[in-house]
Amino acid sequence: MSLRPELPIGVFDSGIGGLTVVRALLERLPHENILYFGDTARVPYGVKSAATITQYAAQITDFLVARRVKLLIVACNTMAAVAVEAIRARSPVPVLDVIEAGAAAAIEQTRNRHVGVIGTLATMDSGAYEQAIRRQHPEITIHSRACPLFVPLVEEGWLDHPVTRLTAEEYLAPLLTAGIDTLVLGCTHYPLLQPLLQEVAGAPVRLIDSAHTTAERARQRLAEMQLLNPGASRPEHRYYVTDVPQRFQHIGERFLDRPLNTLEVVRW
Amino acid sequence: MSLRPELPIGVFDSGIGGLTVVRALLERLPHENILYFGDTARVPYGVKSAATITQYAAQITDFLVARRVKLLIVACNTMAAVAVEAIRARSPVPVLDVIEAGAAAAIEQTRNRHVGVIGTLATMDSGAYEQAIRRQHPEITIHSRACPLFVPLVEEGWLDHPVTRLTAEEYLAPLLTAGIDTLVLGCTHYPLLQPLLQEVAGAPVRLIDSAHTTAERARQRLAEMQLLNPGASRPEHRYYVTDVPQRFQHIGERFLDRPLNTLEVVRW
Repeated sequence: MSLRPELPIGVFDSGIGGLTVVRALLERLPHENILYFGDTARVPYGVKSAATITQYAAQITDFLVARRVKLLIVACNTMAAVAVEAIRARSPVPVLDVIEAGAAAAIEQTRNRHVGVIGTLATMDSGAYEQAIRRQHPEITIHSRACPLFVPLVEEGWLDHPVTRLTAEEYLAPLLTAGIDTLVLGCTHYPLLQPLLQEVAGAPVRLIDSAHTTAERARQRLAEMQLLNPGASRPEHRYYVTDVPQRFQHIGERFLDRPLNTLEVVRW
Repeated sequence: MSLRPELPIGVFDSGIGGLTVVRALLERLPHENILYFGDTARVPYGVKSAATITQYAAQITDFLVARRVKLLIVACNTMAAVAVEAIRARSPVPVLDVIEAGAAAAIEQTRNRHVGVIGTLATMDSGAYEQAIRRQHPEITIHSRACPLFVPLVEEGWLDHPVTRLTAEEYLAPLLTAGIDTLVLGCTHYPLLQPLLQEVAGAPVRLIDSAHTTAERARQRLAEMQLLNPGASRPEHRYYVTDVPQRFQHIGERFLDRPLNTLEVVRW
């Protein structure tokens, strides 16, 4: 399969959270064509079994590969945690994922070697961040915590609300007591809570937003492969979803920070 | 299609919430055979589009009808709100649903004719409770509010937690200001929050748990049709799910209030 710079980057997620990765890509790589796939009919993946998550991830990989992409980005922590090997095995193009990127950034940032990681139940149960970090730096201690209420709080729009603050205080308490100096936001919804989480965690704790680190790795990788789009024509951004849920447009635009056009519904 | 008392009752939901209806059935109708279907791979329905919800509901109806049931109970407010006509059109056996039952109980209970209804986004947006109540009593004023955080709070197990109390205070405030004397719990997860919601609402407000009212209507309907199982043999209870999510057993048993056996996974 010959890859050309004009081919799009394929980005996929279980729902709309991955739009935070698209937003970071648009900032860094404004000339790239992008195909986004959000499995909004079957979201959330975070509470499903590994077998089901892997089956869905394979189906989405095939869909995007068939549409000729030059790079695949797994913008869903849950799929990255559970199914990245299955995705790599099916994909003829390079695959980047948010966990790999977040883990690398955490290793770079920590000074005291106590790193906190928060995410969905499935991501935390998988131990994927621990493995990704310890593979390179076995001396780092990881303190992890599943935060299943953060996604619905973000979708409710309670980004700076007493309920969200109280929830964050409860979820983060054990990590802060353990003395972390770095906190990985291991779910693509969480960047929207970044200001509140920074306040609850305190200024000395560095927050790692894996949307940004993933976009930066995509730029590096494309540059290495000489596949950066030179940008002669106007880039195309297409958004495929499996359902258009209540409030999708509204929530999606909050994630993307711009209008969400050219939405196509795929019925599976 | 000839119906016999030994045939099971089919109960279905988008996930595990409908187990609160099964629990109420087991209390009132201990001799009945029950088939439960929970679409745990595709839960939650509450945020999906009406077209998708209707398609899923039809698929589950066909599945249960093919297994010979004598009565179908739609134990999911979202499906009852959006797809009950499609379900009735496909079903050769009588269909009961939680909205019909909850609306009838609210009409019976209210004295001041100000009724509150809470549920998921899809249920509230459908206006199904309003229609079901106004069809019989147009002079009743309905005050409704979507409470999308209650389901994740129940699943987190924060049934009596400061975060849940603060959330309930915010959600219920406009209904209480409006002077409701009756509050319909329009989602099968909510009965687990009943003690907390009763405290927040105050003792004079009557809470309607539609699991109980639905089970009572099932008993009446089977008696009218002379289809109550006399109970010679030990009843069988089978639970079909489309996925076994994280913590399913634990959460399911909290809903059912007894061990969850004979679980079968259907892969769609």
